[in-house]
Amino acid sequence: MTYHLLIESADRMGLVYAISGVLYDFGLNIEQNYEFVDKEHNRFFMRTEFSGSIDEDLLVRSIQEKLPDINIRLSTKRRKKVVILVTKEPHCLGDLLIRARYNELDMEIAAVVSNHDSLRDLVESFGIPYCHVPHQDLSREDHEQKVIETINDYSPEYLVLAKYMRILSPVFVQKFANSIINIHHSFLPAFIGASPYKQAYDRGVKIIGATAHFVNDELDDGPIITQNVIPVNHTYNASNMAQAGRDVEKQVLARALSLVFDDRVFIFGKKTIVFE
Amino acid sequence: MTYHLLIESADRMGLVYAISGVLYDFGLNIEQNYEFVDKEHNRFFMRTEFSGSIDEDLLVRSIQEKLPDINIRLSTKRRKKVVILVTKEPHCLGDLLIRARYNELDMEIAAVVSNHDSLRDLVESFGIPYCHVPHQDLSREDHEQKVIETINDYSPEYLVLAKYMRILSPVFVQKFANSIINIHHSFLPAFIGASPYKQAYDRGVKIIGATAHFVNDELDDGPIITQNVIPVNHTYNASNMAQAGRDVEKQVLARALSLVFDDRVFIFGKKTIVFE
Amino acid sequence: MTYHLLIESADRMGLVYAISGVLYDFGLNIEQNYEFVDKEHNRFFMRTEFSGSIDEDLLVRSIQEKLPDINIRLSTKRRKKVVILVTKEPHCLGDLLIRARYNELDMEIAAVVSNHDSLRDLVESFGIPYCHVPHQDLSREDHEQKVIETINDYSPEYLVLAKYMRILSPVFVQKFANSIINIHHSFLPAFIGASPYKQAYDRGVKIIGATAHFVNDELDDGPIITQNVIPVNHTYNASNMAQAGRDVEKQVLARALSLVFDDRVFIFGKKTIVFE
Amino acid sequence: MTYHLLIESADRMGLVYAISGVLYDFGLNIEQNYEFVDKEHNRFFMRTEFSGSIDEDLLVRSIQEKLPDINIRLSTKRRKKVVILVTKEPHCLGDLLIRARYNELDMEIAAVVSNHDSLRDLVESFGIPYCHVPHQDLSREDHEQKVIETINDYSPEYLVLAKYMRILSPVFVQKFANSIINIHHSFLPAFIGASPYKQAYDRGVKIIGATAHFVNDELDDGPIITQNVIPVNHTYNASNMAQAGRDVEKQVLARALSLVFDDRVFIFGKKTIVFE
Repeated sequence: MTYHLLIESADRMGLVYAISGVLYDFGLNIEQNYEFVDKEHNRFFMRTEFSGSIDEDLLVRSIQEKLPDINIRLSTKRRKKVVILVTKEPHCLGDLLIRARYNELDMEIAAVVSNHDSLRDLVESFGIPYCHVPHQDLSREDHEQKVIETINDYSPEYLVLAKYMRILSPVFVQKFANSIINIHHSFLPAFIGASPYKQAYDRGVKIIGATAHFVNDELDDGPIITQNVIPVNHTYNASNMAQAGRDVEKQVLARALSLVFDDRVFIFGKKTIVFE
Repeated sequence: MTYHLLIESADRMGLVYAISGVLYDFGLNIEQNYEFVDKEHNRFFMRTEFSGSIDEDLLVRSIQEKLPDINIRLSTKRRKKVVILVTKEPHCLGDLLIRARYNELDMEIAAVVSNHDSLRDLVESFGIPYCHVPHQDLSREDHEQKVIETINDYSPEYLVLAKYMRILSPVFVQKFANSIINIHHSFLPAFIGASPYKQAYDRGVKIIGATAHFVNDELDDGPIITQNVIPVNHTYNASNMAQAGRDVEKQVLARALSLVFDDRVFIFGKKTIVFE
Repeated sequence: MTYHLLIESADRMGLVYAISGVLYDFGLNIEQNYEFVDKEHNRFFMRTEFSGSIDEDLLVRSIQEKLPDINIRLSTKRRKKVVILVTKEPHCLGDLLIRARYNELDMEIAAVVSNHDSLRDLVESFGIPYCHVPHQDLSREDHEQKVIETINDYSPEYLVLAKYMRILSPVFVQKFANSIINIHHSFLPAFIGASPYKQAYDRGVKIIGATAHFVNDELDDGPIITQNVIPVNHTYNASNMAQAGRDVEKQVLARALSLVFDDRVFIFGKKTIVFE
Repeated sequence: MTYHLLIESADRMGLVYAISGVLYDFGLNIEQNYEFVDKEHNRFFMRTEFSGSIDEDLLVRSIQEKLPDINIRLSTKRRKKVVILVTKEPHCLGDLLIRARYNELDMEIAAVVSNHDSLRDLVESFGIPYCHVPHQDLSREDHEQKVIETINDYSPEYLVLAKYMRILSPVFVQKFANSIINIHHSFLPAFIGASPYKQAYDRGVKIIGATAHFVNDELDDGPIITQNVIPVNHTYNASNMAQAGRDVEKQVLARALSLVFDDRVFIFGKKTIVFE
């Protein structure tokens, strides 16, 4: 088994020494280790990769006894269980379905939840449950409550918003804190709001971008995981720009998920530490 | 001699036919031709490249007789005469000085104008006049007037703002309409305003960009010529991000100038048509 | 209907004039026009886009009467009919299936042909015929003959080799001259041959690329349509490099097909002219 | 003072623990730590960044006493002393001169050595010694001997080959083992040999790359530090491709030097470990 040990803590002298000491006592060999101190906030982050056969609880307890005030997460290299939320657009969803089926992402898609029914055939053809939770005739709160109940049936580790076009309430976001990953049209913080590709077209941009980020309570403003762009030119109309946007969105979302599922991403306030 | 013929016009049938007919009558062979119609605004743009020895005025007049209502610009492949405006930062200026000296851009730098004196040695070591126009004890209008007079001594075809940190008045911009090229820190329209790299750092962006654009009367909002980005990560502090920004700024500015000086860029409202 | 008129010819004076004259006589308005002369070989290429309702044969005949010695192709903006050839890898195929289903490429997949049966379920779940042509117990010639017969049942305009791992004979290539598009692992002409990602890993490259090209009679040596790369680092083992390769392969193949299906690509000897 | 501690060793359990223990005993706080094990070769690499005021020899000796068989390098964040070798091309040299002058690279250029005299004015205008070592009428060995003597006058930590077009003998390379950084035209291992841009043009590539690498005894085959590419198209003739190449070369060389001078690069056989 390959383990990913993630430590976050107020910084102080001796953290690496203390943690590596416990691993040494357990007879474990560190294969990759990244450590970073955010000096502005005096915050310590470390990701350690090692292989072996261990009593996981005992390891975590041993570290905690030595360093009672640090945050420890012990994860393993394995397929993470996710629920994907979509509305009508298939480009990101389709890419994730293919990748999950052929192990191009360490992800098991437990279910796809949508407020529309149009992507059902695609999802079901991959043998994955499709849960249609229509929002018609429901208050935002009631619809969201139904979505939450549907998600909870599957106990996912992560929620992936693969072009889910509904705004999530703070209540929803709290329930899945630090576990919701969104792909954002356009290059944050540019062109926030409706019709970003129309905005980009009207502005005559020469690059279209996408941003994958965790969702916190502010719209499109959560910690950025990764970003990328592709070139466009004056011959692109708003529809071509949207296609360029779809192409970069699915690349960026897949890249972000691969980093998150490999436990390489720490969230710290409005930012991320990504150990690539 | 290699000519660049640039035509802009309301679109209608037969424009290519009429123009290529005149060139044919002059015995000229078209070597590259790009034509584009902005259907939203029914606007026609064409750039035609041909070689030969011609009476330039006669050619332009002949086209105008046939098509009296179009805009014609006949330029040639040659070094364009520019004045560069800077404040204190040397990275873009240094790149342009090297490129001009070794013919890596079709540009002759007639002079460098600055509101500070700190880059004088660098510029003069390249044998180029350095004009210090201090802004101390002057009103904005008076300073700008002095800058304009200094520029006019050199009759440049283009002004290059290579990190000129003063805001230009509409009067200034009008005087050099469609001839001022600026390099903008960060990726427009994101992070407009002061301390963009501090903003980018605080936001935890994973990409730093730069935008080269023509200057019109709104700050940082002119027609975009080209844009690019480079990746950054959580180990970059604001100062490292600024260095990444400088690296991409000088690449983007040089690319934009190479397009403009090769007469490949049309300005149309807030956008450009760039025939690459 | 939007038309794409493609002209290739020995260069001489007056070609644009003559062709645009015919379009004018037909009452057609040119919306985009790209013309390029390869001066080294004195060769003229032009792509003209216009809309209208025309007698297609009459238009082509009219141009030919005026210019008997040029090559004319009149195509339209529409879904091109393709057959995809694969072996066992799903990443490019999966991307194309999703794009075709949701109109993200102007492509109708008539059938998928493979020398293995492992991708049948995926393809059939998209409602597309899957033709398994096993190569066991067959000579190369006999297998290829069966593949050709299978393809011919569908009369495709293009063949897409989406990781088809069999070498094609010159006979095969001749039969589908200028119509076969391949995606090549790695960055041509580097790492030609077997195990390119092992080669790349052993060499410690920092970038993995992919090349989409037409297939002519030499292996992996046909005219390049487009290329791209993605960054890798020392933490990538050969398997991670292969995944990076798959990611860039599918991006590059989709981009190449979008250019080809929009009739933007001319083949000229070992090179392409791509009017982007 | 900010220190960079670099450790390379056969891998075994407890290395991180032992090293961090010594740092702890010295009262030092680790600010960044990267560790990587090459499992194929069972090789351990670690870069540790910390600040403080220490007895450097004592620290190294203390680690060595605990771990006698490991390689230790203790460096500091400071300007590295380099000699640059050039032939006639100014683009990389010019970029380095500007960067060194304005502290955009942690580099002090002690001298520039060339087998031609043509770049003397540029270099001297930056106040840097220019050493012309002509190769006329000298055997390769004798010329190289003179170059070595010239270099030795300046005792540089690194040699930068900024388009030095002479092949270095194994003797030369041995003398400056692991200290010579070269920028290679084109994208290794493609287009090795003469006229790479002509080769690239004839092949119709759509991307031009550059590779910065350490020099070992095989031509252009040393450990790669970093690579990048820029797009080109059919309108680029061989000369335009060469300009694109120059643009990417200087970007890649500067990036590589910034990594090397910040002590982020380990050489291991034909590969590098780069802790970015």
